Amino acid sequence: MNIEHTACSKAHMAMQDTLMVVGGKWKLVLLSILMTGGKKRFRELSREAGISPRILSKELQELEMNELVSRTVCHTRPVTVEYAITPYCETLLEVITAMNKWGRQHREHITGRSRVTEKAS
Amino acid sequence: MNIEHTACSKAHMAMQDTLMVVGGKWKLVLLSILMTGGKKRFRELSREAGISPRILSKELQELEMNELVSRTVCHTRPVTVEYAITPYCETLLEVITAMNKWGRQHREHITGRSRVTEKAS
Repeated sequence: MNIEHTACSKAHMAMQDTLMVVGGKWKLVLLSILMTGGKKRFRELSREAGISPRILSKELQELEMNELVSRTVCHTRPVTVEYAITPYCETLLEVITAMNKWGRQHREHITGRSRVTEKAS
Repeated sequence: MNIEHTACSKAHMAMQDTLMVVGGKWKLVLLSILMTGGKKRFRELSREAGISPRILSKELQELEMNELVSRTVCHTRPVTVEYAITPYCETLLEVITAMNKWGRQHREHITGRSRVTEKAS
């Protein structure tokens, strides 16, 4: 019973770790923009994701801390800052793929259900 | 370019759908408690997950709305309410497994890094 409880707690801890690192509204969206579109400047990211600079800055800092995103200061005038995914970020591919797949099927599931309800009513 | 942009937006939408349904601090933890431990009463869930009744009630309601959790009122005295995962919830297994796996490896990655830093300093 105790062993089971420990295994169970470990699984919850692992899940909460993942949610802490890539949960929230924006982090996975930012990572997939950088994964599909390559490196981006701060302003580009802010525009494409539709995130305010204040929130974006905080999110990117946390992603950088977890080694998922790299930040490069380009010595242009004015200075620009580029963000890109790191090679380590590729370890997240399985999570991202599974979430994409489930999101699509769940939307179909829910909209299918509402179509059925409409017909029945 | 436009087609690419649409495919990209669809992927972000799918990800945000998934995050909306199972994101946040508690939902996946609750689902995995119910997956591994079977059906639970409200109080049991509150104690095991360490969530206040107010938050738990809201989280369970949202999970029920998305057909991931079923709620059964048992006509005992006093009335008890039991929660269980639905068969549909099994579609989430891939997401949960991928997140568990990544959480574990990321913790090792980060603690490994801090051990290396300690040795170096």
